[in-house]
Amino acid sequence: MVDVFHDKQFSESEKEVFYKVIFSRRDVRKKFIDKTIDNKTIHTILKAAHHAPSVGFSQPWNFILIKDKDTRIKIKDSFLKERLKSIDYLKDDKEKQEKYHNLKLEGIMESNLNICVTYDHNRFGPFVIGRITIKEAGIYSVCCAIQNLWLAARVEDIGVGWVSIINNSDLTEILNLPTDIKPIAYLCLGYVDKFNEIPDLEESKWLNRLDLQDVVFFEKWNDNNNFQWQAFKNIK
Amino acid sequence: MVDVFHDKQFSESEKEVFYKVIFSRRDVRKKFIDKTIDNKTIHTILKAAHHAPSVGFSQPWNFILIKDKDTRIKIKDSFLKERLKSIDYLKDDKEKQEKYHNLKLEGIMESNLNICVTYDHNRFGPFVIGRITIKEAGIYSVCCAIQNLWLAARVEDIGVGWVSIINNSDLTEILNLPTDIKPIAYLCLGYVDKFNEIPDLEESKWLNRLDLQDVVFFEKWNDNNNFQWQAFKNIK
Repeated sequence: MVDVFHDKQFSESEKEVFYKVIFSRRDVRKKFIDKTIDNKTIHTILKAAHHAPSVGFSQPWNFILIKDKDTRIKIKDSFLKERLKSIDYLKDDKEKQEKYHNLKLEGIMESNLNICVTYDHNRFGPFVIGRITIKEAGIYSVCCAIQNLWLAARVEDIGVGWVSIINNSDLTEILNLPTDIKPIAYLCLGYVDKFNEIPDLEESKWLNRLDLQDVVFFEKWNDNNNFQWQAFKNIK
Repeated sequence: MVDVFHDKQFSESEKEVFYKVIFSRRDVRKKFIDKTIDNKTIHTILKAAHHAPSVGFSQPWNFILIKDKDTRIKIKDSFLKERLKSIDYLKDDKEKQEKYHNLKLEGIMESNLNICVTYDHNRFGPFVIGRITIKEAGIYSVCCAIQNLWLAARVEDIGVGWVSIINNSDLTEILNLPTDIKPIAYLCLGYVDKFNEIPDLEESKWLNRLDLQDVVFFEKWNDNNNFQWQAFKNIK
């Protein structure tokens, strides 16, 4: 996919395509199918990630592509260990504990490709525009890149699951990360035969999607009834 | 824009639309035009943000919409104060300091709408799936939402600039944030008559875009010459 710059307005039908991508992206942990993601497609997805915004144009990300099964077995072990901690955390809430126990939370071995996305605080540093006041801004940039990657994968029919039940010190050891490189995400990618209409955790009634209006405030924190914004409040 | 779920594969022309959005999104700090963003459009953009992935489906974000000029003057003051710190930081590199001095780094007053995006660690807590091991995972979710917002704004012909040269304690005071709510981003949104083909900081030769191949490793950190991945290395 060539990175063509577009300086026109998007038409209504083009907008519709974009929102279809946004609303049908899912966090995928199961039903990966046995199909290889070719190098060209991986490259296309990473290119989308690499075109994310970054604080002071610092592009502080790296992508480690992992196919090796031995590496993945070690990562899976870290997941299993961390999962036990969560089960233990829920020991006083048996109902929630059982529900958690039944959730499928990763596809490390079944997915075709794993990607570890990392943050390099030293890149182009020490002075990075916009990072003097907000030290973590570089990490925020890496997350924007991950979201680009996630959406591009969806467009390519590839599911992505972000597994955050993995210990960073395990990742550092398994992937030979230098001590000043921070792992931000461990992603499992693979073709799926279908994307679920409802997010897994919503479908399993773990949590509901909030109403958008409940997370929007006007002018100040907690102001959700501002007179100037009445018209906004009525939009469904 | 209705949130229609899409369970088909995306066609080649649909993919092209998506990548046009990705490659033509810009971090905009100047040339905002004097045109109001209507409520419906704001709602559409925020809905895209609200459909971002979130750790354990915790949806830990809030969006504070700011039009009030008095509030913005205070925010701008915080920017000006923080900018001076950066100028001081560069005192031993006069060339860089002058370059920095000439950059336009925010559009707080000129943009039509400011949005502060915040993180609520307590939402649906204390047990959030995936946040026991990685404490900051909720913040990562907020950044994914911001990237959705940014892309949706681009589709709507609206430029977004993320201003991270603002002190969080100033934001907390000005916007009445509770102490346990963390500001993540301060965004300036407005229609622009054109999006620049080249990112501002690349055009001003502050920094160059890295080659994608230079930020990709194979199987382990720093392995960029893995035999199994030779074919990937040759993709331009």
